[in-house]
Amino acid sequence: MQRIIPTLLASTLLASPALANDLREAALDMFKPLPSTVPAVADNPITPAKIELGKMLYFDPRLSASGVFSCYSCHNLATGGDDNLETSIGHGWQKGPRNAPTVLNSVLNEAQFWDGRAADLAEQAKGPIQAGVEMANTPANVVATLNSMPGYVAAFDSAFDGGDAVSFDNMAKAIEAFEATLLTPAPFDAWLNGNDAALSEVELAGLELFMDKGCASCHSGVNVGGHGYYPFGLIEKPGSDVLPEGDKGRFAVTETADDEYVFRASPLRNIAETAPYFHSGKVWDLKVAVQIMAESQLGEELTDGEADQIVAFLGALSGPVPAVSVPALPAETGTTPRPTAEILPQ
Amino acid sequence: MQRIIPTLLASTLLASPALANDLREAALDMFKPLPSTVPAVADNPITPAKIELGKMLYFDPRLSASGVFSCYSCHNLATGGDDNLETSIGHGWQKGPRNAPTVLNSVLNEAQFWDGRAADLAEQAKGPIQAGVEMANTPANVVATLNSMPGYVAAFDSAFDGGDAVSFDNMAKAIEAFEATLLTPAPFDAWLNGNDAALSEVELAGLELFMDKGCASCHSGVNVGGHGYYPFGLIEKPGSDVLPEGDKGRFAVTETADDEYVFRASPLRNIAETAPYFHSGKVWDLKVAVQIMAESQLGEELTDGEADQIVAFLGALSGPVPAVSVPALPAETGTTPRPTAEILPQ
Repeated sequence: MQRIIPTLLASTLLASPALANDLREAALDMFKPLPSTVPAVADNPITPAKIELGKMLYFDPRLSASGVFSCYSCHNLATGGDDNLETSIGHGWQKGPRNAPTVLNSVLNEAQFWDGRAADLAEQAKGPIQAGVEMANTPANVVATLNSMPGYVAAFDSAFDGGDAVSFDNMAKAIEAFEATLLTPAPFDAWLNGNDAALSEVELAGLELFMDKGCASCHSGVNVGGHGYYPFGLIEKPGSDVLPEGDKGRFAVTETADDEYVFRASPLRNIAETAPYFHSGKVWDLKVAVQIMAESQLGEELTDGEADQIVAFLGALSGPVPAVSVPALPAETGTTPRPTAEILPQ
Repeated sequence: MQRIIPTLLASTLLASPALANDLREAALDMFKPLPSTVPAVADNPITPAKIELGKMLYFDPRLSASGVFSCYSCHNLATGGDDNLETSIGHGWQKGPRNAPTVLNSVLNEAQFWDGRAADLAEQAKGPIQAGVEMANTPANVVATLNSMPGYVAAFDSAFDGGDAVSFDNMAKAIEAFEATLLTPAPFDAWLNGNDAALSEVELAGLELFMDKGCASCHSGVNVGGHGYYPFGLIEKPGSDVLPEGDKGRFAVTETADDEYVFRASPLRNIAETAPYFHSGKVWDLKVAVQIMAESQLGEELTDGEADQIVAFLGALSGPVPAVSVPALPAETGTTPRPTAEILPQ
């Protein structure tokens, strides 16, 4: 692990412009500030009409079989883009298998879900809508629902060219377009962009430790994670309270023994707002999560002060959610499929 | 029932300014346009700080025991201020006993709930939070939750004078303050205010029928209903599919035999966006609901055309929801009570 600046000096000397610039240069080798514009997305040109439609869909509980859950339910923009539950509660009060990741900045993740099984947000969006323990719906029922409301048909027609604009694929693309707008520039971005005053001394010390101890080996890039897959317990496997044996992570995707208990390194933006932590959602305290990571992934026993500094740095990864006004959704019509709370066998 | 203008003439002659003014004058005897400012509320001065806090609380699922449901869940501002379900689904996937009424303009109702058992919105707000089939929380747990987050404590301190600002009562008052802002001026208001072009001919014909047939005897005032209690089935009791025998309405509040199957006359603003209808939520089609009302309450068999006209008028009671941006809620802390999905015996 490279040592950027001798740790003992860091906390007193980072105020010095020269050393701050050294740290910034090293940081810019590992991280990238958020872009100031909505990122381009493969095969999905992002337009205002598509964003607006995507916002409607994101907020619409009628995408679920029961009429109870929308994307927003588990990826709540008021609470850090997730639901603050160990694992989400969905159709029939069933619990999902893994903690809901934040939607914020997720467009910049290399792949989606804890095991990276969806290549992009459009593919991701189709998952929970169909999962029996989440929204429990079917593509055919979603399309029938959307087609039953002239307001939706018009919104699809204006967002997508060509006939048959209302489709499950286009629904997913519109949701992806809206989600791509959910970037949250944070103090860390301002600092990366050259504003020395954006991070406090303790946050800078935490950043330095974060790079120095090796956290940034996995949690790097624009989302400080969100790319690359690593075994949870690289050095020391955490207990089954944190790493339940039944969930073998990416193994389920690749069926390769090497991928047992392998998960995508979490993106860490807004991590301070998105407790509880890990795919199991079993740890509520960010400091404890940092300590578990240091031990299990790096074989490092952090001092209390070190853990506090890293937590302070992680706090500087939180930025405000863009203003999102609640959309006005079209009313059901006589042909809209009725909601059902029934739990059907999968 | 007073006959305002001979019905046969109405549809052709309402374009005449003189007759339109006659109809307006008659209408202003029965209805009132929405105010242009937030209404004053008894014992709860409405301030910007209180509105802002109330919005946070309204959107916060951590007011529920499970962390799944907020006020917004069943009174969704994207779908007419209700949840478009027969009866709401709450804690443990339990079904509530009655259809969720819209929050929009509800501050102007004389009393709250289908049986009027809450005098105002502050009292109302405390109901679902504690109901075992809804949010299943306790006042003590809500207060502990709010007190655990410095962002909430500061917001309560700035919204309420004096010590102990964080309380279940003040929570309810703040929610009431936010809800009081949710007024939706509609074409009908513009017309009442003197804009002849605001209602179409068929809407005007529907309005005239609405008054002429007697609908306005119960559905009057600023919310076109929302005050006064009437037996459902005044003339002819509807079938138990629409009026289930187990729910005796206001009887449960007053324990007076006369109040069996008595309900508050529904406020009809935004009714076109808030299917399904009646306290049972058993009727999805507004035209069918109008026909059932005419038969059961007035002993009137409406022609198909008459029902269509009344439905057109009811559509003119829909107005846009004020722009509401999703609030940024404080993150949990180490002392925030954890959510529980468990179903406790009541």
